[in-house]
Amino acid sequence: MDKAAPQIAKVVEALKAQFGDRVSVNDALREQHGRGESWHPSAPPDAVAFPTTTDEVVAIVKLCAAHHVPIVPFGAGTSLEGQVNAIHGGVCIDLSRMIGIVAVNTADLDCTVEAGVMRAQLNTHLRDQGLFFPVDPGAECTIGGMVATRASGTNAVRYGTMRESVLGLTMVLPDGSIIKTGGRARKSAAGYDLTRLFIGSEGTLGIVTEVTLRLAAIPESIAAATVGFQSIDEAVKTVIEVIQSAIPVARIELMDDVAVDAVNRYSKLSLPLQPTLFLEFHGSQSSVAENTREVGEIAAAHGGTGFQWADVAEDRSKLWEARHKAYYAGLALRPGSKGLVTDVCVPISRLAECIAATKADLAKASMPAPLLGHVGDGNFHVCFIIDPTKPNELHEAEHLHDRMVERAQDMGGTCTGEHGIGLGKIAHLQREAGEGVALMRRIKQAIDPAGLMNPGKMF
Amino acid sequence: MDKAAPQIAKVVEALKAQFGDRVSVNDALREQHGRGESWHPSAPPDAVAFPTTTDEVVAIVKLCAAHHVPIVPFGAGTSLEGQVNAIHGGVCIDLSRMIGIVAVNTADLDCTVEAGVMRAQLNTHLRDQGLFFPVDPGAECTIGGMVATRASGTNAVRYGTMRESVLGLTMVLPDGSIIKTGGRARKSAAGYDLTRLFIGSEGTLGIVTEVTLRLAAIPESIAAATVGFQSIDEAVKTVIEVIQSAIPVARIELMDDVAVDAVNRYSKLSLPLQPTLFLEFHGSQSSVAENTREVGEIAAAHGGTGFQWADVAEDRSKLWEARHKAYYAGLALRPGSKGLVTDVCVPISRLAECIAATKADLAKASMPAPLLGHVGDGNFHVCFIIDPTKPNELHEAEHLHDRMVERAQDMGGTCTGEHGIGLGKIAHLQREAGEGVALMRRIKQAIDPAGLMNPGKMF
Repeated sequence: MDKAAPQIAKVVEALKAQFGDRVSVNDALREQHGRGESWHPSAPPDAVAFPTTTDEVVAIVKLCAAHHVPIVPFGAGTSLEGQVNAIHGGVCIDLSRMIGIVAVNTADLDCTVEAGVMRAQLNTHLRDQGLFFPVDPGAECTIGGMVATRASGTNAVRYGTMRESVLGLTMVLPDGSIIKTGGRARKSAAGYDLTRLFIGSEGTLGIVTEVTLRLAAIPESIAAATVGFQSIDEAVKTVIEVIQSAIPVARIELMDDVAVDAVNRYSKLSLPLQPTLFLEFHGSQSSVAENTREVGEIAAAHGGTGFQWADVAEDRSKLWEARHKAYYAGLALRPGSKGLVTDVCVPISRLAECIAATKADLAKASMPAPLLGHVGDGNFHVCFIIDPTKPNELHEAEHLHDRMVERAQDMGGTCTGEHGIGLGKIAHLQREAGEGVALMRRIKQAIDPAGLMNPGKMF
Repeated sequence: MDKAAPQIAKVVEALKAQFGDRVSVNDALREQHGRGESWHPSAPPDAVAFPTTTDEVVAIVKLCAAHHVPIVPFGAGTSLEGQVNAIHGGVCIDLSRMIGIVAVNTADLDCTVEAGVMRAQLNTHLRDQGLFFPVDPGAECTIGGMVATRASGTNAVRYGTMRESVLGLTMVLPDGSIIKTGGRARKSAAGYDLTRLFIGSEGTLGIVTEVTLRLAAIPESIAAATVGFQSIDEAVKTVIEVIQSAIPVARIELMDDVAVDAVNRYSKLSLPLQPTLFLEFHGSQSSVAENTREVGEIAAAHGGTGFQWADVAEDRSKLWEARHKAYYAGLALRPGSKGLVTDVCVPISRLAECIAATKADLAKASMPAPLLGHVGDGNFHVCFIIDPTKPNELHEAEHLHDRMVERAQDMGGTCTGEHGIGLGKIAHLQREAGEGVALMRRIKQAIDPAGLMNPGKMF
């Protein structure tokens, strides 16, 4: 971060002159903007500003830059690794009022939206046009936040993550300049891939204000199902065989018995208390029927039982809503708790071994810890449900977390499939990327020489 | 580039001491290494080195860096925008002897190869394991070169480009340090996406020495076909409707009548002399049958006739070999010619209009100029077959080329879908990326402060 002393008072004064009540130093509001949905303690910014245009973002950034004040971009505040916590203070730029859907090009299956558009808002807007935006993290988050975190979700096994779904960006750089990256062509070999450099940069290189996204056509036929297994190993082996058979599942999600219990209670389901796969198939009627049959055979060969079909759209919605709320279902197992949620991703061939070793660790844990994930990608989560008043629990969870991450890395995997680095995984990134972190720092230094963009995150 | 005077003689002397006859200053060899397959005049390097390991690449890079000597990485020399031309001299690092296939993980559908492995070599190696690597530019090129150029090809509409196909890289940076980016997990949110920063960087940020690639399973069923149309507009409208219907074609390629004529002569085919689509479908027997029927109906509705099926693998190979050799077929229309080949990509909704306007320009051109492309992505090429002894022809072709690129950009497209920038499209990149180019320069400066890596390319 910039060595010169920040002059926050001057910045707040100037912001108030320009933005009136769209700038706040209210304690409750600052507290709320100082954290995401993880256990990390809130680190409130000095002020929160609510711009409504890219040019207003530019004005705020230039003001902060001129006065050496840190800048923290904020979407819906659902990040899980402390990405929005203003640990060096400064101005939080809340983009939630930039909710314009700039263009939808049905003929090209793309759209351009402002960064504050919510995932759900976009899909509601698209539905009548037979399109949808497939990337679906569990949280109710903004598109800009999803770009910043390189988010994914349940559909990634079929449709890719934000890495594959963003065609172009409008970014405000740390000096207040605006650049547009990418475009609307499906592919390009024109220069460095700035779009993908910004995807996953967690607000440390600039602020996303507009996003051009690839969309997908709502498939002719959709079928969803749940199937239970005697052991988690059999469930995982089913997943591995489905993926290795190149069957184009749209979704293939695992919940262990603890997660199923949490979801049953929270979302009023009545799934048998056993390791369970949630599946969905997209395509033509005949291809969905074919894929369904093939996966059914593989599941049966691994002892899968109790196939429950959700043929009606409402039943499917209920199922996936339950899946998406699994994190909150976990927290509800223990009122007043916080989640220390981990997120690793391994090559699919190592998934059974990685999950088995993780479950052996969890069997000894003193807190509930549901395991679930987007297993078709080799990605899974454990959510340690900790009592924030008991430091021992946080310490224990952190220890198990470290073991889990290092195990995944040692299997050729990554410390995070989709939640990012933030404050929570700085050491893990260092272990994983090694010399690459030094290169990331050089890029950061080149783009944000004063170090004002979301300082203290990632490295 | 570094302001200090290069000390090439000292570098050659030191290289000879270490590499013996794996370093050469032979004129013919230097001349051959001073150009790709485009019209750009050869700019020979001062010396060519043939390392066989990453550590040897490091040694060469450190030596060059210490003596302010430019470095130009070289694969198979098939680039089309002057990417390998050593316009500031220096040492060409020819990676064609780094041909080890380090690992194939059939269970994870991935592999790791050295940068000099040829695309065809890899596919021959994989065939017995039921896998293939789908990215297939027309040229016989190296995997490292494909990374550097962000290559794609006929399968990109289904399987993606190098951008989507590379999981990780081993890179030698301009200071001689080695970094490994990415890994074997299918997705990751761990830090900046260095992998994609290096993909398409055209040797300006470092040297690719190893690549981890996603593979695909050879599909159960494959069907290929050609179909002719009365007008190019009807052919393009067929493509647009197929893509907008989300039918998962594996390949959908267009050739205009000029390209068909060239391919007929060069590859001994007997296609009717009319705009023609080359198609391929991958999947289960039933899904291929279904897709085939759907596409057949769309083509027929646009007047498509003479559907010719290539059901036998040999016939399919002949068809796609002819397609891949289309550039050479174009050159053979006029012995002694050079190709000025352009490569634009537009949103699919603008494709018919863009091709129609381009064809109207070509109707007035004084040289043959086949039009063909990966139209499912909105990507197409024109190859101006010029007589290199006639400066007027180059001038005319450049003018038509500029018009074509600017038209594509004005339609929301890009100046290059897959050939890259090199020497040939520096001004076009500036027009397209605007302020983004300044940011690319800052990144270049951060990673290669002395400016020794492939100087003079891209910007």
